[in-house]
Amino acid sequence: MKKAKKNKNAAILIIGNEILSGRTQDLNVSFISNWLNLNCGISVSEVRIIPDIEKKIIYNVLDMSKKFKYVFTTGGIGPTHDDITSLSISKAFKVTYGFNAEAYTILENYYGKKNFNEPRKKMAKIPGGSKLIYNPSSSAPGFKIKNVFCLPGVPSILKSMMPNLKKYLKKGLLTSSTTVSILAVESRIALYLEELQNKYLKKIDIGSYPFFRLGKVGVAAVLRSTDKKIIEKCKKELLKTLKKNKINIYSFK
Amino acid sequence: MKKAKKNKNAAILIIGNEILSGRTQDLNVSFISNWLNLNCGISVSEVRIIPDIEKKIIYNVLDMSKKFKYVFTTGGIGPTHDDITSLSISKAFKVTYGFNAEAYTILENYYGKKNFNEPRKKMAKIPGGSKLIYNPSSSAPGFKIKNVFCLPGVPSILKSMMPNLKKYLKKGLLTSSTTVSILAVESRIALYLEELQNKYLKKIDIGSYPFFRLGKVGVAAVLRSTDKKIIEKCKKELLKTLKKNKINIYSFK
Repeated sequence: MKKAKKNKNAAILIIGNEILSGRTQDLNVSFISNWLNLNCGISVSEVRIIPDIEKKIIYNVLDMSKKFKYVFTTGGIGPTHDDITSLSISKAFKVTYGFNAEAYTILENYYGKKNFNEPRKKMAKIPGGSKLIYNPSSSAPGFKIKNVFCLPGVPSILKSMMPNLKKYLKKGLLTSSTTVSILAVESRIALYLEELQNKYLKKIDIGSYPFFRLGKVGVAAVLRSTDKKIIEKCKKELLKTLKKNKINIYSFK
Repeated sequence: MKKAKKNKNAAILIIGNEILSGRTQDLNVSFISNWLNLNCGISVSEVRIIPDIEKKIIYNVLDMSKKFKYVFTTGGIGPTHDDITSLSISKAFKVTYGFNAEAYTILENYYGKKNFNEPRKKMAKIPGGSKLIYNPSSSAPGFKIKNVFCLPGVPSILKSMMPNLKKYLKKGLLTSSTTVSILAVESRIALYLEELQNKYLKKIDIGSYPFFRLGKVGVAAVLRSTDKKIIEKCKKELLKTLKKNKINIYSFK
């Protein structure tokens, strides 16, 4: 598909037992994906969720760093004993793990000298050679090492930091999309969507997602492309086909 | 950790462009993880989210099938052109991809002979040698091949099918957990939690998760173990330490 070739591909590595156990609902994947696409024209090609286990962090960071243009990790950079992302990534890239002078000063100023205890100091320890990603929400910075961007797991803090890493990313082609919500079960319109996908094979990506909304059953047909004109053309054809076959639309945006 | 050794380990493979693009919020990871733990004592050790691309499905299904006791896939078994999970898994395991007689009958009865069109028939095509996972919600069955369980992506349908695959799973030790919600920032109590974790090193897993609730900032300390007595003992010690240090509790369950 056009977007897969020309867009910059990224991956997300969610580090945290609480997501794997089902205790906490992950919200960072959809936020980061949407943010990267809307702001930078970067698509997320793969996500992995792994536990707070050093060897798993090391393996996945190295593997994903090789396979993808950018890697975004979330979780494990806080002050507690189970926050081992910074140490593990230092080991992965075989760099020192120690105090970053700037991060130390930021944290010391934030907490005050008197309250700057060991767990708080730990948050200033990051892999050597990293660049800081500033945190306007709770001060403890994230960091960038090679093509890996390390962010915290708390969604509100993560969100506040994304604009501060934008300068490190090269823009790709922005992907646009249009949704046509069709009042028919998926199996009734599947052939029409397939014909359309085959016609515009490498130019557009047509996805089909069932919905149940206010007692209505239907399908959201999502047309995605880096070319807005193709999306418009394709949408018109789809609407024409649906009308011809007396299938109603719920709404479309 | 005790649970990591004795519990059965599972992995989840979410197949779907709509999750990767951020359009759709995944809800299946937390549901499946909680369900497996509560009903079967099975822990999820890894999750991957990948696009609807044949070679990626084949690679990840084979890789995860080797590495984990059980693999649960979601998505891509519907009637549309972008539903390629069944075909891809047939190729992964080098088995035939064709009509399953029982699935064909189930679907034909559900839709009626007259309305049983090609896209609907496609849902009866599954990898040869699979066992069906019945679907009380919308009839189209999932399937089990080797240690891989293939389920649909729509959460309500997936939920309705989980009880029908329970018979294929060997029970592990059930993991229990207790949460102590502490009214202090994480960096204030980090050392107490670390001391406790070190004391009960392989017997309990202590996680620490910041929360912001009704204007209060705190930390949920989650104690997880397959041994309820150890959890109780550890909780008592934690509460004692907190009291001694004049740190309040928000609530605990």
